[in-house]
Amino acid sequence: MKLNKEIIGNHNADLNSRHQTKLQFTASEVANTEAIIEKLMAFQIAIPSWALGTGGTRFGRFPGGGEPRSIEEKIEDVGLLHKLNQSSGAISLHIPWDIPENYQSIKTLAGEHGLAFDAVNSNTFQDQADQKHSYKFGSLQNVNKAIRKQAVDHNIEVIKHGVGLGSKSLTVWLSDGSCFPGQLNFRKAYQNTLESLQEIYAALPSDWKLFLEYKSYEPNFYSTTVADWGQSLSYVQKLGEKASTLVDLGHHLPNANIEQIVALLLMEEKLGGFHFNDSKYGDDDLTAGCVKPYQLFLIFNELVEGMDARGMNHAKDLGWMIDASHNVKDPLEDLLQSVEAIMLAYAQALSVDRKALEKAQEENDVAKAQEILQNAYRTDLRALVAEARLRTNGALNPVELFRKSGVRNELIKERGAVTVATGL
Amino acid sequence: MKLNKEIIGNHNADLNSRHQTKLQFTASEVANTEAIIEKLMAFQIAIPSWALGTGGTRFGRFPGGGEPRSIEEKIEDVGLLHKLNQSSGAISLHIPWDIPENYQSIKTLAGEHGLAFDAVNSNTFQDQADQKHSYKFGSLQNVNKAIRKQAVDHNIEVIKHGVGLGSKSLTVWLSDGSCFPGQLNFRKAYQNTLESLQEIYAALPSDWKLFLEYKSYEPNFYSTTVADWGQSLSYVQKLGEKASTLVDLGHHLPNANIEQIVALLLMEEKLGGFHFNDSKYGDDDLTAGCVKPYQLFLIFNELVEGMDARGMNHAKDLGWMIDASHNVKDPLEDLLQSVEAIMLAYAQALSVDRKALEKAQEENDVAKAQEILQNAYRTDLRALVAEARLRTNGALNPVELFRKSGVRNELIKERGAVTVATGL
Amino acid sequence: MKLNKEIIGNHNADLNSRHQTKLQFTASEVANTEAIIEKLMAFQIAIPSWALGTGGTRFGRFPGGGEPRSIEEKIEDVGLLHKLNQSSGAISLHIPWDIPENYQSIKTLAGEHGLAFDAVNSNTFQDQADQKHSYKFGSLQNVNKAIRKQAVDHNIEVIKHGVGLGSKSLTVWLSDGSCFPGQLNFRKAYQNTLESLQEIYAALPSDWKLFLEYKSYEPNFYSTTVADWGQSLSYVQKLGEKASTLVDLGHHLPNANIEQIVALLLMEEKLGGFHFNDSKYGDDDLTAGCVKPYQLFLIFNELVEGMDARGMNHAKDLGWMIDASHNVKDPLEDLLQSVEAIMLAYAQALSVDRKALEKAQEENDVAKAQEILQNAYRTDLRALVAEARLRTNGALNPVELFRKSGVRNELIKERGAVTVATGL
Amino acid sequence: MKLNKEIIGNHNADLNSRHQTKLQFTASEVANTEAIIEKLMAFQIAIPSWALGTGGTRFGRFPGGGEPRSIEEKIEDVGLLHKLNQSSGAISLHIPWDIPENYQSIKTLAGEHGLAFDAVNSNTFQDQADQKHSYKFGSLQNVNKAIRKQAVDHNIEVIKHGVGLGSKSLTVWLSDGSCFPGQLNFRKAYQNTLESLQEIYAALPSDWKLFLEYKSYEPNFYSTTVADWGQSLSYVQKLGEKASTLVDLGHHLPNANIEQIVALLLMEEKLGGFHFNDSKYGDDDLTAGCVKPYQLFLIFNELVEGMDARGMNHAKDLGWMIDASHNVKDPLEDLLQSVEAIMLAYAQALSVDRKALEKAQEENDVAKAQEILQNAYRTDLRALVAEARLRTNGALNPVELFRKSGVRNELIKERGAVTVATGL
Repeated sequence: MKLNKEIIGNHNADLNSRHQTKLQFTASEVANTEAIIEKLMAFQIAIPSWALGTGGTRFGRFPGGGEPRSIEEKIEDVGLLHKLNQSSGAISLHIPWDIPENYQSIKTLAGEHGLAFDAVNSNTFQDQADQKHSYKFGSLQNVNKAIRKQAVDHNIEVIKHGVGLGSKSLTVWLSDGSCFPGQLNFRKAYQNTLESLQEIYAALPSDWKLFLEYKSYEPNFYSTTVADWGQSLSYVQKLGEKASTLVDLGHHLPNANIEQIVALLLMEEKLGGFHFNDSKYGDDDLTAGCVKPYQLFLIFNELVEGMDARGMNHAKDLGWMIDASHNVKDPLEDLLQSVEAIMLAYAQALSVDRKALEKAQEENDVAKAQEILQNAYRTDLRALVAEARLRTNGALNPVELFRKSGVRNELIKERGAVTVATGL
Repeated sequence: MKLNKEIIGNHNADLNSRHQTKLQFTASEVANTEAIIEKLMAFQIAIPSWALGTGGTRFGRFPGGGEPRSIEEKIEDVGLLHKLNQSSGAISLHIPWDIPENYQSIKTLAGEHGLAFDAVNSNTFQDQADQKHSYKFGSLQNVNKAIRKQAVDHNIEVIKHGVGLGSKSLTVWLSDGSCFPGQLNFRKAYQNTLESLQEIYAALPSDWKLFLEYKSYEPNFYSTTVADWGQSLSYVQKLGEKASTLVDLGHHLPNANIEQIVALLLMEEKLGGFHFNDSKYGDDDLTAGCVKPYQLFLIFNELVEGMDARGMNHAKDLGWMIDASHNVKDPLEDLLQSVEAIMLAYAQALSVDRKALEKAQEENDVAKAQEILQNAYRTDLRALVAEARLRTNGALNPVELFRKSGVRNELIKERGAVTVATGL
Repeated sequence: MKLNKEIIGNHNADLNSRHQTKLQFTASEVANTEAIIEKLMAFQIAIPSWALGTGGTRFGRFPGGGEPRSIEEKIEDVGLLHKLNQSSGAISLHIPWDIPENYQSIKTLAGEHGLAFDAVNSNTFQDQADQKHSYKFGSLQNVNKAIRKQAVDHNIEVIKHGVGLGSKSLTVWLSDGSCFPGQLNFRKAYQNTLESLQEIYAALPSDWKLFLEYKSYEPNFYSTTVADWGQSLSYVQKLGEKASTLVDLGHHLPNANIEQIVALLLMEEKLGGFHFNDSKYGDDDLTAGCVKPYQLFLIFNELVEGMDARGMNHAKDLGWMIDASHNVKDPLEDLLQSVEAIMLAYAQALSVDRKALEKAQEENDVAKAQEILQNAYRTDLRALVAEARLRTNGALNPVELFRKSGVRNELIKERGAVTVATGL
Repeated sequence: MKLNKEIIGNHNADLNSRHQTKLQFTASEVANTEAIIEKLMAFQIAIPSWALGTGGTRFGRFPGGGEPRSIEEKIEDVGLLHKLNQSSGAISLHIPWDIPENYQSIKTLAGEHGLAFDAVNSNTFQDQADQKHSYKFGSLQNVNKAIRKQAVDHNIEVIKHGVGLGSKSLTVWLSDGSCFPGQLNFRKAYQNTLESLQEIYAALPSDWKLFLEYKSYEPNFYSTTVADWGQSLSYVQKLGEKASTLVDLGHHLPNANIEQIVALLLMEEKLGGFHFNDSKYGDDDLTAGCVKPYQLFLIFNELVEGMDARGMNHAKDLGWMIDASHNVKDPLEDLLQSVEAIMLAYAQALSVDRKALEKAQEENDVAKAQEILQNAYRTDLRALVAEARLRTNGALNPVELFRKSGVRNELIKERGAVTVATGL
């Protein structure tokens, strides 16, 4: 155990006085801080197993040190994050990068860290060493029935692993598409993909969900077969009740209004969950909130309003996951920063004066509507997020404590300086 | 009559010898040129009444001369285009810019020019002088029921004008949306819009179609309530069989793969028609094919393949319209260039070796698929388009004849040098 | 006088107690708040005369009421803003929309409102009624020497008006460019533009500056002759010391890193000033900070660092102006919101721990650098901006006071409900 | 030798009759075909050594077979291309992927294939096994002087290899930049980079050129230190006469007008050369002309006009290279298609009626200017490109012959089915 209660307790004791002052001031500025804190305490964001190592680009990869070498070490890393922020109580596994050999022992280990297993992820965008057919020309869309079957079977196997671990959802991200005009018949690619998805859907346990991710481009550079929210919606509507759309913030064309997409998917009862990250150019997979924090707030503003309108449970009725890559930062620090940014955006959205906003909208009082949103956003709510951590035995300042406690050095000692975790 | 058969006949006589040489050579290079020519002869592209005058931007407008001052003069202008290219046999009217006072006389006039009335267009993006409520905050989406009703009533009035003239479809383009975060509740805006559209749909004659256009942004700069193909599809699926989506090439986010969207809308049986134009940055409303002619070809490639797969009639089963603005060119010359570019792209798509392409796709032979498409595109098929005109008594070179015949000067003499046609 | 000291004083008295609490808390959280407040007090943002009326798009314009009908009323409006926020102490005029008839009386009027005259703006993107030549095909770039001369003469006339009023700079924004491939010879267009600019530059008084704005597109939709920062830099380097580049935040291609451009222009000693606004898609001319407030902060972060590195005076050594359009908000409220957002971003940038940031950069401690920037940004500094207003006799909450005091109604009574101010 | 004169001769004999018919027809349609053919014969496009194997993305790589395993095999592959099209008479090496051990033997081998050595390329975007310092945080920009020195030394070593082989230019592409706001001080990064470039420049032989490439983003996702043409220009102007800018078509923000950039760089006498490819979304590295062939033509239109205006030699005064990645096509077929598309665009640009275009531009006859460009583009000039090949003993249809002759199978037999060439 790299971090124990005592270390965290000492850290909190040092910072608590200043924290309390700030918390009190915040409570004097913002209505219902208690209700906000409680919602923050309940909110958990799953950590993807593939984000625990240093990421890379097609141009290169510059590994850090102490990266996890096994599923056990990945669970340990997420456990560490969760101990620090008490908001990362789930892990999202990726098959075949994280094939569990013994479900029970893995579940026990996760349980010791207070972690649940969130959505399991299939991988048909790479060829594995022992694979019969190649996905060079797509998987679920492939013109070759045998290749489609191989990809369907892989997804069904992923579901089985998920069942073994207690996961309740499958995330399907397809890189299927084409690089050149003429390569694909778009209609047939759609129909092959739909048929394949239907076979996977048929294998889904009755209490499971299937999340279908979309992405506008990359790694295919002419077309993608599930390219935008409209295409994902079209598939999941045909699949059935258990299927819904997963939104990855980086998977849009330039300037897309993601918050509107989120609101409409919620309205259509087909929003399934999120992959959080941030980006400036494309699927940059940067730390959540590092480039466009106001957009993140606006998305949460739609989520809170839309989920409340449907009487949904914020913490449980959608899948909340991070999907990021860490080329120049320590992955664990980056993930702590992402979770903090997400929690803060959620807190800001919770603090919006909904009645006043609704009134301004009904009166077309645009300047007022902006004042309401910006007031919520400009108010410093970090003390509420910190308080939620404090009450659940997390650390007041997770990044600072992570650094001071020297965890990374311990990991490097244990695991070596040149380990490379599976992932991108 | 600015141009008569004799003038056109003389023009063609002068160019015919060279044309025949080129046609023969083309026929020696391309299979089935006769079938292509026949399809070209049947293909008509509607001219929008608002594109006959000089366009402008918010920064200014630099009128040309001889612009049409009335619906009659607009019909005359389209008649002129049609006489030249025999491919512009329809006019698309815009209400209230073109309110017909006497349906019969207008129909007779159009008939004399060989013109039909294509889709009629409503306008709820501007306030009219005598209007009770303002559309400043939207029309069909408006939070105020009375304003929504005014906009619905206007659309029903437009249908009535269309019925009077023999039109069979209504195009609805909504500028509705918002300029600032917080201004709109996206879900309610959607639901208000849907309800309004349902009222309009209910007033649609049984043999009519409703085309719902989408646009990513402008004139609203934060959100648009029918913003992309996915949103338009969501509405028209809820409306019913007579409703379908209209694609304007300039209404997409940067880098969107429009040809894939077209293929999927066709597959969903919800593609209604087109507004052709070209663009580099946004809704630039430039001449069709002037910036991205290969994209235009790729779109027609999907159209030909997709319509044939469903046994559709190329000429009749979709609405083909131009929607462009002419800030620095003579509007009539610009429209002739647009029609030529569209016909050429259609001809190229017709000449694609479909069997070979299908085979290449089935074999994932990407380089071959590219060779097939590029061979069709690089082959000069202008002689086929010209031949289609020749056989229908149009001009071999419409732009050249328009210039030589001095039509614009005649129009300026008749109508004045500083007339400004209604439109944008 | 719509607002007097008493009204403002009463407003401040009502809010002061809460303000003081907030200010004290802020001072306990942030170092050097006094220094920040003093810099905020000195910082003035010029209001463009064309932003005082309701804007519009090519699709329509929905006027508000009480818009200024004359240069005097425009000065009155800016005076009103300045009285409220004490940060709008300058007006930027646009010729020929605001031709002063008697310099002295206008200067006196402005003086009574505490206003200076910032950059004067020429207009060669529209034709004026009495103009000999048209700018349809460009002004300073025009192939016709006589048209170029007309445009040069207009700029020289604008300088004369500016001299009469005590302005010290000329802003040149050119819409010159082309709509279609082939329309322009890019090189000749550049050279004509350079030659024209050199003639204008030669007429510049010795203590004046020339700001050359760039814009990637609109109203020309294929090319723009001063299209990006690189092109503007290329011109102003050839012109000489008094010429520099003006950055309008909305004038970039999608995803451009504007803060880097700003840093490099400062480094090249060729940054002249700013047109502040915000945008999601293009030159949307929205309220500053309404869509991308973090970007605004990052820009100010570069400005503070870069100006300090060169020993520049923040308030005086660059031109700070707003350039926005107000289609759905009250223009005066919108401008108050813009100024507030700019001041806040400036305050946040001033509060960045520069030494710690420099250290993090020297150590490639990327996560730390992010912590430092985000800490400055997430801290609520509105009390500092409010305090700067309070100390200069402005209002603690300008938008609220503007509304409560009923100024707009007074203006409507005085000026009418359907006035339309000159502008876009 | 996979292909000999006899095989090519037989291929040409089979196709020649039809080719001659097409050539004659083309000559009857286009003026000066002989002059065009001669220019095409002289035009050579360098093949990058890293494009001879299958490319990949960060998500995966799907190798083909028979990829070159050594510099010798790369030369053999380029020799093969050149034998087929006689337009690929140069190879561009990448250090350290292609370190020559014996200059003389490599030069001899290249000479046997009729190949020259074009620009040599340095690599400071990846870490090599034996490298002391990491480029994780940049190379020439690095805050650490020792790392900058290592990167400078590497570039100097690359120059030495180039000298040994008879190359005359160094291409510098830097991935240097940052992934997060705050990571870099932009000004210092610029200055470090400039200083490093000056050291490299100082080591340049007197008859060498240095090409500085720019790229808007990737692999850094917040800022790039040589991000656009304006930044590259700013560096090369400070470096001196031997330095110029290299344009890679995929390295721009969405919608950039590349042809204008090319024209202006030529005008500034700072255009050095090209990396040809095509793209839809970003730096997609697709086959030249496969997505936007009209843009490729417009770029060559500027090149021909601009080079002629300065009396430059088309074939020799700029560096012409391909830079592409081949994820789903046979690399050699893809390169043949790229060269064909480039030659065709060049031929089209050569066939533009320059006098008529200049006249149309002088008269602002925009529709006419478009007619002139589109006439050149729509005319099928493939027979001229084929004739240039025929006269230089290349193949009339290189892709077809490559396939029929079974070269790839021979290569697979020789080199194996699972070889992976160095590169991306």
